[in-house]
Amino acid sequence: MAPSLTQVSSNKHFEGTLTKYKFKSSALGDLDAAFNVFLPANAASAKVPVLVYLAGLTCTEDNGAQKGSFMKDAAQEGIALVFPDTSPRGANVPGEDDSWDFGSGAGFYVNATHPAWSKHYNMRAHVAQELPAVIEAAGIPIDWSRQSIFGHSMGGHGALTLYLQSFLPPAAGPGPNERQYRSASAFSPICNPTIAPWGTKAFSGYLEGGIEEARNVYDATQLISRVKENVHILIDYGTADNFLFQLNPDNFLKAAREAGHDDVQVRVRSQEGYDHSYYFISTFASDHIHFHANFLKA
Amino acid sequence: MAPSLTQVSSNKHFEGTLTKYKFKSSALGDLDAAFNVFLPANAASAKVPVLVYLAGLTCTEDNGAQKGSFMKDAAQEGIALVFPDTSPRGANVPGEDDSWDFGSGAGFYVNATHPAWSKHYNMRAHVAQELPAVIEAAGIPIDWSRQSIFGHSMGGHGALTLYLQSFLPPAAGPGPNERQYRSASAFSPICNPTIAPWGTKAFSGYLEGGIEEARNVYDATQLISRVKENVHILIDYGTADNFLFQLNPDNFLKAAREAGHDDVQVRVRSQEGYDHSYYFISTFASDHIHFHANFLKA
Repeated sequence: MAPSLTQVSSNKHFEGTLTKYKFKSSALGDLDAAFNVFLPANAASAKVPVLVYLAGLTCTEDNGAQKGSFMKDAAQEGIALVFPDTSPRGANVPGEDDSWDFGSGAGFYVNATHPAWSKHYNMRAHVAQELPAVIEAAGIPIDWSRQSIFGHSMGGHGALTLYLQSFLPPAAGPGPNERQYRSASAFSPICNPTIAPWGTKAFSGYLEGGIEEARNVYDATQLISRVKENVHILIDYGTADNFLFQLNPDNFLKAAREAGHDDVQVRVRSQEGYDHSYYFISTFASDHIHFHANFLKA
Repeated sequence: MAPSLTQVSSNKHFEGTLTKYKFKSSALGDLDAAFNVFLPANAASAKVPVLVYLAGLTCTEDNGAQKGSFMKDAAQEGIALVFPDTSPRGANVPGEDDSWDFGSGAGFYVNATHPAWSKHYNMRAHVAQELPAVIEAAGIPIDWSRQSIFGHSMGGHGALTLYLQSFLPPAAGPGPNERQYRSASAFSPICNPTIAPWGTKAFSGYLEGGIEEARNVYDATQLISRVKENVHILIDYGTADNFLFQLNPDNFLKAAREAGHDDVQVRVRSQEGYDHSYYFISTFASDHIHFHANFLKA
């Protein structure tokens, strides 16, 4: 039986409604998990397609909803948005709150295999399987057969890897179904985390097999090499991003081209002078919503 | 000599730049004051008009910049935005941090006359006189002869009263010059603060003469009755606003009509189902920017 949702708050927004819910998450070891969902006005008459936004390190389900500037265009396009949290909360694993880039707020969209973390730190299963099932069971009018995914930084890594995993199942326990997502996009994503400080720290902690275990499942640059089907990917990053050394978009682009994915399938845009902040994200938010609308409404 | 500005941060945003500065504010008793300024791309070639945004209770110079969704349209219109803080910080007046609706984060855009507060709590002088002078002296390319003002809640009160005061100088010490602002708008403003709990608490604390002293200077509903010139005012409020009892937009509208200001001069819009949050503000942000652009670019 699906867990029941408790409504935390609700705000009218661009003629639609942004609602925050919480529920007891089995994917996260029976901890309370919160998420925001934006339903455009047209959801009153029919199920709408959905775009899932994965936030970055230190964020919650609120950052994208409050600062992303996604809803104006989503409302116009008639697309729902789902904003998950970025990690379990209150798991009380030793070391969970010792650093801002590991543990709380830093789930990295993996299913943990290290025994210390594997009960709770399963954001991959939470995002790809649990949230769609729970939201569907609650009768919220979303058509999950029309689903795409995007994100920022760690969440950009999450969006790219969940999308690419959906071409290459099964792997690493509960995750996306085959072709679960129609398209993926990312702002400043961690494209090659097995060689980036944030990624290697996360994988070394959450995965029993460490970086080696991550290579085939959680590294977008590795994954794109193995996907032969047509893909729909848009990436934006800023040239003034202080974290560019963590992101490696060039590695991803090179691997994509070598695997035969052209500029229509994988578009990587370098944005002059922009940084890693939500001021960058909101500048290009409209482009990303309309990119996904092409596929969600096809 | 004008105080020098220290740059705290800078982010490229919609092809323009959002920069946070701080400086030693004499209006606020030599405390450090921070503000954000957004310059659209066209400010590189000529001075641009400016819209000042006053935030509400508990906010800082960041809330409007991060959550208001003002910059996309301001960039398109070629208008600068200035985001002041909502009070002095660190004045160490006894009681300053005892409640969320008085003291820190709650300056109410007055010049305090009570001796305990009058050294520091002069947000009226800070916004209307000091910030334009300091920004001008720093060579930031803003044309202050083309200036309008808007705000939210307490900041809506600030925008309306500073605008209306500019038709009725002199009063209450350093404040707006004659016709300093071309237009004013507000989201969920405290329209009649001398009869609202937030307003009476603030005035009783900051002003030696209390509510009586506030009536002729700091109450928009009182002020609009005395202004005979043509005005340009837009107000939006939500019918689901839990703080509607603090706002009294109907009183303001009635006083405006009785003073002969028609629907072109004073437009008050009731927005069905919206609340007091930035989700409401951002929904109508675009309307407000374009409203002011009519006058700033005339």
